[in-house]
Parts: sequence; C-alpha cells; structure tokens
Amino acid sequence: MYATTTVNGLHVDKISGTMDAVTANPALARFQFRARHQWIDGSYSRTTIKDFYGVGQEDATRTAPFTVDSDEPPVLLGENRAPNASEYVLHALAACLTGTIVFHAAARGIALEGLEATIQGDLDAQGVLGLNDSVRPGYEQIRVTIKATGDFDDNQLAELASLTRYSPVRDIVSNPVPVAIDFARA
Amino acid sequence: MYATTTVNGLHVDKISGTMDAVTANPALARFQFRARHQWIDGSYSRTTIKDFYGVGQEDATRTAPFTVDSDEPPVLLGENRAPNASEYVLHALAACLTGTIVFHAAARGIALEGLEATIQGDLDAQGVLGLNDSVRPGYEQIRVTIKATGDFDDNQLAELASLTRYSPVRDIVSNPVPVAIDFARA
Repeated sequence: MYATTTVNGLHVDKISGTMDAVTANPALARFQFRARHQWIDGSYSRTTIKDFYGVGQEDATRTAPFTVDSDEPPVLLGENRAPNASEYVLHALAACLTGTIVFHAAARGIALEGLEATIQGDLDAQGVLGLNDSVRPGYEQIRVTIKATGDFDDNQLAELASLTRYSPVRDIVSNPVPVAIDFARA
Repeated sequence: MYATTTVNGLHVDKISGTMDAVTANPALARFQFRARHQWIDGSYSRTTIKDFYGVGQEDATRTAPFTVDSDEPPVLLGENRAPNASEYVLHALAACLTGTIVFHAAARGIALEGLEATIQGDLDAQGVLGLNDSVRPGYEQIRVTIKATGDFDDNQLAELASLTRYSPVRDIVSNPVPVAIDFARA
C-alpha cells in the first residue's frame, strides 16, 4: 500500500516532487500565462483564459476556456454586470496570498483549518478621469487582513505570516512590472 | 424631445457630467473598492465582491455579490476549477486598458467598433516556490497587443494608444502600490 499525505488539501509528495524537479532543472519553472480579451459594449468586456506554457510544455489539461467578465457600477457608467478591473486586482491579490500561504504551509506540515481575508484598495478617480496629472490612476494603497485557524503555535503563526513574500501577485502589485503595450488597427 | 448622444455604448452627457462634478468637488473622486476572500481547499478559493465607497457615499446599486473563484492547473497542484490569480491579473489589466480607452475615446467623440487584446505574462516559478531568492515571484514582464477598429484617422489612432496612461490597473502593475498585510488568528 502507498500512503499519500495530504495537508491543506494538497499532496505533500507532489509538493516535494515539484520542488525537487525544479531544483534539478530550473528551466521547468518557466511559465507564460495568457488571456484573450474583447470589448463588448460600454464598460462591458470579456476575457477568455485557457492555454499557458509551463513545466517545459504547452498545457493540455484545460478542455474549455474560462470566461471572465468585467463591467462598472452605474456611477462609473456601467450596469453592474460584473466586478470592475480594479476589484479583480483585489481578488487576484487575496487569492494569491491565501494560495501561497496554503502551499508553503503544506510544505512545512502546518495544517490550516481556515483562511479568510478582507481586502480594501483606495483610489482617487481624478487619475483615471484625467482631471489631475498629479493623481495616480491606480490604488494609492491596499490593506489586507487575513484571519487563520488551524493547528499552529505562535512561532508557526509568524512563519505563516512571512510566507506572503512568495506571492506572485503581492510582488506584481508591490513592485514594478514592465508592461509593453502595442496598439494598432486590426 | 431630449436627445442622448451615445458613443462606444456610453452616454456622452454622463461622461461630461461626471467630469464636471468631480472638477467642482474633487472629494467625489474618492473610491474604496473591497473584496472578501475565503480559502476553500487546496488551491481552490473564492472571493465575493459587492460593496464599495465612491462619489461621496456607500454604493447601494448592487443587490447581490459577485462571486469569483480561483484555482490552479494540475501542474501547480490544482484541479482547473477556475483561472489562477496571476491569470486574473492579466484579465484585470486587459479589461482596464480597453475600458479606459473606450471611456476616453467616447469623451473625445472617437467611435470604436471593436477592441480586442491578447496579453501574456512571463514568470519564473522558482520565485513562488521559494527556491531562488534572486528570482521575483511575480511577472518579469507583460506584453499586450490591442487591435482596434472604428472611425478614426491616424492622429486619433495615436491618441487612442496614449489613453492607456489613465488606466488604473496599468498603473497598479507598472508602479509600486503599498500593500499592508495583517495576518492573525481568527
């Protein structure tokens, strides 16, 4: 019999297998994520997400694309058909923080029972409206509160808190990412 | 009779009304967006998005929360139940770019017929795995290609391309945003 140890819903042997494989061949860690986006009307738009490159090959496990819509609330001239883009950033950041904590906690054998986060971003819309060049369009600051339950002591609590340093989206939001935009006629 | 002019699916009088109101009272431009997030199991988690503050008050137009799920593909130990957090960043950026262009194009009377974007982000997973401290966890670079159709000349094409400078998510990704994280026992 072969016993599989699961911590936080993740197979510990798969985690260590991934770590070992990437350590032996760092090129396996190259990923490219992709999305296709289409403006529909007004503030309404749609993204499809399916293919990506990683672990040395094009992924073939997703049989259908994910569809993600964006809109704005009425005060921002939309019709509330979906969250807006800035709200999706909060989702992405929260999901990345908890996912990163859960993964590295499992790798350390720290069992979590629950993780909940609230997240807020403050923004001055003078920037996006183009009314004040001294106001940045994006968030001035983001605050996240994460509440954890599980079988961990105070030292492990501090270790869990430190795991957010590995979060891709925390890095993307906190630090500059070069964005190249090519705009042309279809 | 009262004629409403619509450009790109947006009411031009609402755009100018918003611009005028914020110019007269910049405090109306203060927004706070929010999300609540819950880890479910393994790589799977869920965000709900509903309330926000803006235009001097708590929004009351959303009668039900939006639900947005995240997961990972199998090579990242998930089950493909939803896009992952880094893919949501690409969605948020693409949606923000097209939304910002559409809004400011309408304000300038430039009629668009279509806007489509493809977006790619490159990432070295040694960072998120914690295997190499010199590798950032997030995207090393993001490339966006936007194709536009509509009734615009070459000067207006250049103007449309420049409108991405007003995009909140372009700013959030390109420039540092302070992120404060409080991690505690529930």
